[in-house]
Order: sequence, then structure tokens, then C-alpha cells
Amino acid sequence: MRLSPAISELIRALRVLPGVGPKSAQRMAFQILERQREGGLQLAKALNDAVEKVGHCSDCRTLTELAVCEICVDEQRRASGLLCIVETPADVLAIEQTGQYQGSYFVLMGHLSPLDGIGPDDIGLDVLAQRLAKEPISEVILATNPTIEGEATAHYIAELAQQHRIATSRIAHGVPVGGELEYVDQATLGHAFSGRKRLQFD
Amino acid sequence: MRLSPAISELIRALRVLPGVGPKSAQRMAFQILERQREGGLQLAKALNDAVEKVGHCSDCRTLTELAVCEICVDEQRRASGLLCIVETPADVLAIEQTGQYQGSYFVLMGHLSPLDGIGPDDIGLDVLAQRLAKEPISEVILATNPTIEGEATAHYIAELAQQHRIATSRIAHGVPVGGELEYVDQATLGHAFSGRKRLQFD
Ligand SMILES: [Zn+2]
Ligand SMILES: [Zn+2]
Repeated sequence: MRLSPAISELIRALRVLPGVGPKSAQRMAFQILERQREGGLQLAKALNDAVEKVGHCSDCRTLTELAVCEICVDEQRRASGLLCIVETPADVLAIEQTGQYQGSYFVLMGHLSPLDGIGPDDIGLDVLAQRLAKEPISEVILATNPTIEGEATAHYIAELAQQHRIATSRIAHGVPVGGELEYVDQATLGHAFSGRKRLQFD
Repeated sequence: MRLSPAISELIRALRVLPGVGPKSAQRMAFQILERQREGGLQLAKALNDAVEKVGHCSDCRTLTELAVCEICVDEQRRASGLLCIVETPADVLAIEQTGQYQGSYFVLMGHLSPLDGIGPDDIGLDVLAQRLAKEPISEVILATNPTIEGEATAHYIAELAQQHRIATSRIAHGVPVGGELEYVDQATLGHAFSGRKRLQFD
């Protein structure tokens, strides 16, 4: 017995979601068709809307429906002179939820990964260099993940900031090494910000 | 900082999926928008297609795009005289995957649950009674879940079959009590079929 083609296709398509294997995809498809048809249609609409409307902020590269995101248009945040570099929009959200940071962001949408062919321009470092040259940025805060790639990316950006004679710091205490920023609790992430260490160049 | 409305709505809509909490919904939304936009659009289309096309088989009530499903139109299966009663389409799929059953099905799309106001007609027992009256069914196999509601439903249907003087059996060995049929491995489910016990009425 084969499943109805429309059900099979729905199960296949659900596997695009992270953490969804064949068995949970099947369970999701049946639940939608048995009990959540309205919710299924709403999800379809939300997917179409989000993919259509959401692009990247021209200043910080985060995901937004606007040309320039809410944070980047905030004059007070720009005036702080602080620019925090993160890997993903989820990291921005996590840091915002601590309520302890009032500067701007730059979202790499990834990290340097030479083996995967991901170089500086692929994570927007050309755009970042232009911003460092033009804007009155007093400190670059490196909040990439404490992974090998995140550290290498932080190091690369630290050198870039150094070329523009901009002070650079790396968030510090509390973020567990090997962990991902997005999953750190708010208190720990707050500590990591307040305990950041200035990088020294000799 | 608030999330872009289209992203917030996508996160909200994803929570219709079973087992998806706020954090995984957020992770799914970001993954789609960062890396899986094409997959997101395919999922939207699959959802719309499935909700639009998939209805219920007029004979067995399972989910299908056809008026009468593939299994119900199979003359050999009808000729077997066996009718297996299950709670959900996922149960049909699980039983089919054992390859050990060659009869027909009747899918309740639930179970009796008086406290939730779910009575016999809500799970199609009026339709089942008509089939038991008209069709040459020699044995009703009760494969509802081994839960309190599933057992009560099985007992109710056993009495219905008894009224039509049709032999009734309950699948037996191997299905763990309190478990759900859908998640039982194929071998165990195969045993449950071959070891089914005839119900005795006195
Ligand atoms: Zn921005
Ligand atoms: Zn059918």
C-alpha cells in the first residue's frame, strides 16, 4: 500500500525543517490532515509571506522586512559607537533578550569556513570594512560562537578592525566553549557582555 | 527589539506542528529564511495541496485523495472477509509495513471518549454498522490502541459485531500496554496479528 501522493509529498517537504526525521514528518503530516487543517493552511501562508517579504538589512545583514532594520535606524544605538558582530539573526535575538546591550549589530550570516569555500566576502566582511572606514565606531565587540570557526572568524575581524584603528573586544565569561550562542541562557549571556575583554595587539 | 512581523507569524504558525515548542519553531523559521527558502516554498505548496486534495475514503474513512482508497478497491482484500479496525491512518501504514495482513480496514479517526463528547457516530460506527450488515465480513480484527479508550472502543465494536453474528478478534502479543500502535516495530506488530485471540461471548 502506498501513501496518497499528496501525503507523501507533504511528509517529504516537512523534512526541510531542522530536527525532523521521517517518523516525525509522518506524524506531523497526519496530525495536520486529521486535526489541524486550518493551522496547516495558516502555516503555508506564513511560509509564503515570510519567504516573499523577509530579506536582509542593508546595514547589518540581519533578516528583516524593511530595507534597514529597526535596530540600524535607531540613532541612539548608532551613537553608542558599539558594533557587535554575531553569526546569525538568532544571536541578535538572544543578545537583545538580555537587555544589556544598546549598540548596533553586524550579522555575518555564517562564519569563515575555507574548507566549505566560505571566505570573507561570503560573510559580508567587505560591507563591514566599508562601515568600519566610514562610521564613527569606537568598539567592535566580537560575539561569534566559541567554536573553532567562530574563533577564527573573530580573529580575522579583529585584525580588520585593527587596520581601522578601532578597539576590539571579545565577549567572554560564561559562554561554554563548543556551545552555540543562540542556546545560552540570558544571565550567562549578560555576564559575557559585561565581562568582555579588550584584545591587545603588540 | 521586536522580530519582523512575518518572522513572528511564521514562528507562531510552525507551532501547529506536534512536538514543536517556541525555541524549535524559532530555529525552524530562521533556518528556512537563512538557508532553505526554496524548501520553505515547497513545504507551503505541499501543505496547500495536501489540505486541498486529501479527504477521507468513503468506505474505510482513511486519508486519501481518491473517493475510495487503494486498499478498499482491492477485490482480493475484500474477498478475504477480514476487516481490521484501527484508530488512525498511521496505524494502517504501520500494519501494512508488516506485510502480514491482506484484509480490509476501517479507520475510526479517533476512539470513543465520552468525557470529550466523542460518541459512536463521531468515530464512524454508524457507517461501520452498515458495512457489517451488508458486506460478507467473516472476522472483525480489533486493532485499536491498548489504552483505556482504545480498549473501551474495541469492546463497543466487539458487541456491535456480535449483534451481526460476526466473529471478532483482538490483536494480542507484543503491543506494549499504554503504548501507541503507530510506534511499535514491525516484528512486534506482526506477532500481534498472527497471535490474535478470538473473543468469546457467553
Ligand atoms: Zn540592520
Ligand atoms: Zn478505504
